[in-house]
Amino acid sequence: MGEETHVSTTAVSPETASEALAALRWKRPLVHCLTNDVVANVTANALLAAGASPVMAHAPEEAAVIAARAGALLVNIGTLTRDRVEVMVAAAEAARAAGAPWVFDPVGVGASPFRQEAAARILAIGPTLVKGNAAEIVTLATGRPAGRGVDSEEGESRAVQDAAVALARRLRCAVAATGRVDLVTDGVGVLQVHNGHALMGRITGSGCAAGALCAAVLGAGAPALAGAASALAYFGLAGERAAAGEPGPGMFQARLLDELAAVTPEDLAAGARITA
Amino acid sequence: MGEETHVSTTAVSPETASEALAALRWKRPLVHCLTNDVVANVTANALLAAGASPVMAHAPEEAAVIAARAGALLVNIGTLTRDRVEVMVAAAEAARAAGAPWVFDPVGVGASPFRQEAAARILAIGPTLVKGNAAEIVTLATGRPAGRGVDSEEGESRAVQDAAVALARRLRCAVAATGRVDLVTDGVGVLQVHNGHALMGRITGSGCAAGALCAAVLGAGAPALAGAASALAYFGLAGERAAAGEPGPGMFQARLLDELAAVTPEDLAAGARITA
Amino acid sequence: MGEETHVSTTAVSPETASEALAALRWKRPLVHCLTNDVVANVTANALLAAGASPVMAHAPEEAAVIAARAGALLVNIGTLTRDRVEVMVAAAEAARAAGAPWVFDPVGVGASPFRQEAAARILAIGPTLVKGNAAEIVTLATGRPAGRGVDSEEGESRAVQDAAVALARRLRCAVAATGRVDLVTDGVGVLQVHNGHALMGRITGSGCAAGALCAAVLGAGAPALAGAASALAYFGLAGERAAAGEPGPGMFQARLLDELAAVTPEDLAAGARITA
Repeated sequence: MGEETHVSTTAVSPETASEALAALRWKRPLVHCLTNDVVANVTANALLAAGASPVMAHAPEEAAVIAARAGALLVNIGTLTRDRVEVMVAAAEAARAAGAPWVFDPVGVGASPFRQEAAARILAIGPTLVKGNAAEIVTLATGRPAGRGVDSEEGESRAVQDAAVALARRLRCAVAATGRVDLVTDGVGVLQVHNGHALMGRITGSGCAAGALCAAVLGAGAPALAGAASALAYFGLAGERAAAGEPGPGMFQARLLDELAAVTPEDLAAGARITA
Repeated sequence: MGEETHVSTTAVSPETASEALAALRWKRPLVHCLTNDVVANVTANALLAAGASPVMAHAPEEAAVIAARAGALLVNIGTLTRDRVEVMVAAAEAARAAGAPWVFDPVGVGASPFRQEAAARILAIGPTLVKGNAAEIVTLATGRPAGRGVDSEEGESRAVQDAAVALARRLRCAVAATGRVDLVTDGVGVLQVHNGHALMGRITGSGCAAGALCAAVLGAGAPALAGAASALAYFGLAGERAAAGEPGPGMFQARLLDELAAVTPEDLAAGARITA
Repeated sequence: MGEETHVSTTAVSPETASEALAALRWKRPLVHCLTNDVVANVTANALLAAGASPVMAHAPEEAAVIAARAGALLVNIGTLTRDRVEVMVAAAEAARAAGAPWVFDPVGVGASPFRQEAAARILAIGPTLVKGNAAEIVTLATGRPAGRGVDSEEGESRAVQDAAVALARRLRCAVAATGRVDLVTDGVGVLQVHNGHALMGRITGSGCAAGALCAAVLGAGAPALAGAASALAYFGLAGERAAAGEPGPGMFQARLLDELAAVTPEDLAAGARITA
């Protein structure tokens, strides 16, 4: 491994991930989640297991107030409605005004023009991080739907990386494209996170929980690129540990929460696989 | 056992169920779920565990678009609202126009006139399959509320069978009435599915998941009568296996997903108990 | 321990809790839940595991009809919207008119003026029991937000007890303030429930499930003060048993349902720790 690669890797080394998790555990950030109906429960439980404090509140009368007070905001469009778009816009603007990091998860953005238009409005507010699966990131970058559903995977192809980098440059934010290998970029550097397990694709809400954990790590003070890579490594490592013994998806789901609680910063220092 | 009975049984034999599950695993149909808030997560997980691909989307701006593209549609009125009725009608019409199978699950239809009126509107569109518990099917067939709540069971009485047959004839579709023994009919033949376990009634959403699995099996190409019986036998067999060792309802819920993933077409050929 | 204390304790003795659970198992009350989106599933499963029968229905067209027929009503404002407030008011009025007990759980009431105003409207209808965590009860009693989020805990301080008693006197109802030790009061007597485990705070919805179980016990005929203490002792004992072996939060969540089903009235007689 060359010196240059070594230096880049160190910039988001296992130690960085370890520190990000330690900060999360220490600060217990309040993460405001505007997420989809299907995964609200598992998202809240993932945040609690990780050590953060979730709050779900989507009434227009209070969403902006709560977003402004929270340590971070998650906006996830999985089961979007017109009313919810307005709430998301207001909350994202409040988070931005308050200087709080906010994460956008464009779930199923290619499924309809309605979601694409909503995503465009939300993106215009300037998220700290966009985290989607490969198909969703390609859809956002190119404006053309890619993949058929929310559980698509495209792997770590060059096309995905190009899309992520282009999107990050255009939006001036960090972008994470998840898949067998996760890519995270700020438009300049690109990190690859090799943690994870195929069982994570067999349960609903794992991608959504990943977005929430990114928000929690950013809410605990980590910078966007290193924080997103750290959160994805942490989540992936928990998934690897939960998959030990090849459980079925039901037991895996329970164990994944167990491992989110059990993984220590030291475990993450030893187990994070992040490369530049 | 007479020849005639033998022939009818063979028409939806364990081999038929096995083939239906094999097709589901091979085709991985996209199942659009308009279902209730309480069970959305477990429904998505049941579909993923079974090998299908769930999509939940209930905005009026996109529900019909997604329904038209999906392999099958599920309409479940468990936590109905007026807005949701309109979305269900639009999506059902889109599915019908696209030639995609769609399943109606009249959860708690006897609970209020509001649900009965909504059910009447939805049924008029012409579902491929109506799947309810015995009380719900009797309510739809007679127009009079039967049973007090959504977790009612009435067993496999003659009254239930008569109601199911009458409903199937009136609607010209298949009807499944679940209970200790599930009845499935197309208005001519009646099949009994003997798989299942009492623990399935101790967790919320098992009936709703059964409806979703019916939609998935139909979405993979199975005809309505045989497909519904196959899906219910598959779900019931998974429940039997998950109940081994008499777990409590919490562990049973996790294991049920495990078994939905673990049951193979060969297991189903050996374990399906479908009689005419 | 003095005679007077002994008498007061006996008034809500382990035997009382045992009888309350036996009545719940026998009567299987229908509990209408107007609760938040995040915990609807776990609330339904907790009620089923306990032996009650849950029904979730929040359409304005049917909520009052269903509330009037149910054995008890739960109103929980965790993910409140303006429309839902109207439904809660209508359902609470229907429950009151029908003479059915109803429980108010002011989740996160301190999070926004919107929730405080909604809580004030709902409280004016006259709940049978208000069950909140310590911060929520203090917020209701003082009108000033206490605690930062829904997972706050304040312990069993004198301030919490004073707030609970004042609130109970003002509303002329029972009040339960949960925490490391739960306090239950009718404005005159104060009971302490010592059952429970710290893991219950590591999963979402445990407080919400506690409120639902209170509604179920009241729906089975128990008086408010003794019923609430009994329900909280039952839930806490299930939590203690589920925590045996120090599982992670995912497995704990599954086991908690298992133990809600497994705890017998005899177990509760032996394990309830309620003091005056």
